[in-house]
Amino acid sequence: MERVACISSAMTAFGQREEWVIELATQAGLACLEEVAVGAGELDHVYLANMASGEFEGQSGVVNALVDEIGATGAYGARIDQTSASGGAGLFAAWQSVASGASEMTLLVGAEKMTHRTTAQSTDIIASLTHPVEYKHGVTLPSFAGMVARRYLDRYDAPRDALAKVAVKNHRHGVDNPHAQFRKEVDIETVLESPIVADPLRLYDFCPITDGSAAVLLCPESVAASYTDAYCVISGIAGATDTHVVHERAEPTHLGAVASSADRAFDMAGLDRDAIEVAELHDMFTILEVLQTEAIGWFEPGSGWEAVDEGVTDRTGSLPVNTSGGLKSKGHPLGATGVAQVDELYRQLTGGAGPRQVDAAAGLACNVGGFGNCVTTTIMEAVT
Amino acid sequence: MERVACISSAMTAFGQREEWVIELATQAGLACLEEVAVGAGELDHVYLANMASGEFEGQSGVVNALVDEIGATGAYGARIDQTSASGGAGLFAAWQSVASGASEMTLLVGAEKMTHRTTAQSTDIIASLTHPVEYKHGVTLPSFAGMVARRYLDRYDAPRDALAKVAVKNHRHGVDNPHAQFRKEVDIETVLESPIVADPLRLYDFCPITDGSAAVLLCPESVAASYTDAYCVISGIAGATDTHVVHERAEPTHLGAVASSADRAFDMAGLDRDAIEVAELHDMFTILEVLQTEAIGWFEPGSGWEAVDEGVTDRTGSLPVNTSGGLKSKGHPLGATGVAQVDELYRQLTGGAGPRQVDAAAGLACNVGGFGNCVTTTIMEAVT
Repeated sequence: MERVACISSAMTAFGQREEWVIELATQAGLACLEEVAVGAGELDHVYLANMASGEFEGQSGVVNALVDEIGATGAYGARIDQTSASGGAGLFAAWQSVASGASEMTLLVGAEKMTHRTTAQSTDIIASLTHPVEYKHGVTLPSFAGMVARRYLDRYDAPRDALAKVAVKNHRHGVDNPHAQFRKEVDIETVLESPIVADPLRLYDFCPITDGSAAVLLCPESVAASYTDAYCVISGIAGATDTHVVHERAEPTHLGAVASSADRAFDMAGLDRDAIEVAELHDMFTILEVLQTEAIGWFEPGSGWEAVDEGVTDRTGSLPVNTSGGLKSKGHPLGATGVAQVDELYRQLTGGAGPRQVDAAAGLACNVGGFGNCVTTTIMEAVT
Repeated sequence: MERVACISSAMTAFGQREEWVIELATQAGLACLEEVAVGAGELDHVYLANMASGEFEGQSGVVNALVDEIGATGAYGARIDQTSASGGAGLFAAWQSVASGASEMTLLVGAEKMTHRTTAQSTDIIASLTHPVEYKHGVTLPSFAGMVARRYLDRYDAPRDALAKVAVKNHRHGVDNPHAQFRKEVDIETVLESPIVADPLRLYDFCPITDGSAAVLLCPESVAASYTDAYCVISGIAGATDTHVVHERAEPTHLGAVASSADRAFDMAGLDRDAIEVAELHDMFTILEVLQTEAIGWFEPGSGWEAVDEGVTDRTGSLPVNTSGGLKSKGHPLGATGVAQVDELYRQLTGGAGPRQVDAAAGLACNVGGFGNCVTTTIMEAVT
């Protein structure tokens, strides 16, 4: 089967935005098309990755509005939701549309507008993605993060500082990303002295609440070069779920859906783990990045923190993780995040990452929903 | 490319249900698997067509819950939303998953839980699928229905009775559907004397608010016979959008997205219009069924009402439309509707429709979102 190419990507500034989700989505979609001078009339399918515009804004039918606003009326459109992994699920839908022959040119936009709500309101909306036996008793995602961080530190005798270093690293990376919500370095003391959210995790262990959008454009590999020299291919993509209730898992520090979606994606790409030279992981909180590097198979369980400690996952290390700044400094507009991860891989693999450019022929993105409840893993490769 | 087969379908009783959306979805999903003794562990992908569980129930992440509840933990899952056409979009996603090779066994469930809300609350949630320039000024879908019905009757000198006959026909069909919300005949006087909703349309011109769920199971055609003799194939499937703002259309009685999605689906199937011998159309209100029969190309613009008047679209006519009872009598749980349409086609094409069985080798389902803002058209064929 012919591979699917990514021929363009775009993202808007992440942060506190005045625009509503339709406007944010439209901006990213149009920018992505303009980059390669593809007309909206050439689009067969348009997908919108968005978790909760109905809950956040009281507005549904957003993908219809998007298709119309970008001038693609007539094209097919659908919204894809997989909670905080909606962007990855959107990419999988977009990939399937091209791979199945249903579409020869597919635009995927991810967007979310959140900051007009109070943190308490946003937290309520986000918490409802877990099972009622959890959130209705106050066990929300930050609570899980705290409990699992405690478990990890105890079980593996890992130092608390190593988690803080994830935040320090990703903030350092984010300085070079003009679209990032926070473009400032933080030092380890700032992280360790920030207010407690869920012991042992503190405010600076968590990503912020964010508005923003991102977009990518996909077509069959055979025609990609007719649009641009700057394209890469999706060589592996797969998703998986874990138990919907976290306490049913044998070991909560093992992210089973990350592991199985990565297994499937590597099988499809025919690559070994060490072929990956840049990765965008879902660091909604610091411990989650470490757990992903283990579940994907780069490091043994309990040793992922050492890679952070030793700078392996730094931009200058052998496996740069979150060169974009990650969710931690770039921000986390739910439906946009998985698409923004792929935007970063596209830039890195086509030489368009500017001051944060690394030398990579293959990259991986891992988009996580809930506490690993649902995951999509994507492998992209440069073309030579 | 190999065709995609539908090897099982199921639906729950439509109407006022006590269960929440997760329970409704689980019931339909399990029933669909049991029908052909496919284990949940055999599923690669699970899709949930649902418009608004977040708005109706304050519950998101429903597809994760569904995957877990049916015992398919590990499988990939995503929710597909395309407003009232979510079921059709879900079918397109499920089709793409198999056609692209990403999945060899895909379960699609459509579900919505609505009746615990007041009609006013439900109407607010549904209205938000249209553009704010419309619904914020009070122009909701029933308003459009009234205006377009008036336009149609005036422009084509059509009798008001013909619209009422759509309701009479679909109620008559629904009597034989054990899953229908209303299993009672209505006479034309009852329709014409029911309370006015949006002149000239009255209460009995509109579908009810409904809870319910439906499911279908898809796999490659080459392996379908190893599961069951009772399978059919999806030979054509396509979607399209129209302007998101209805007043921007040249002629509101022409459903452009119905026409173009049907064109694409017929092209893909390689069939002529007259090959279709049974159809499930989106009769959210009576005039919409008539407009679809014209936009699909079975009847000239302005003459669709004559087909109703003459009994052509009766179960005993040459083109039976809505043998299931349609949205009008079967009910319209948003995300479930498009899946239930396909459930009816599966039953008709595999000889499992019981007292409402017709003789058909090919069927068509048309699922409409908004006022034709987005549409998916599906053609299914019996295998001989």
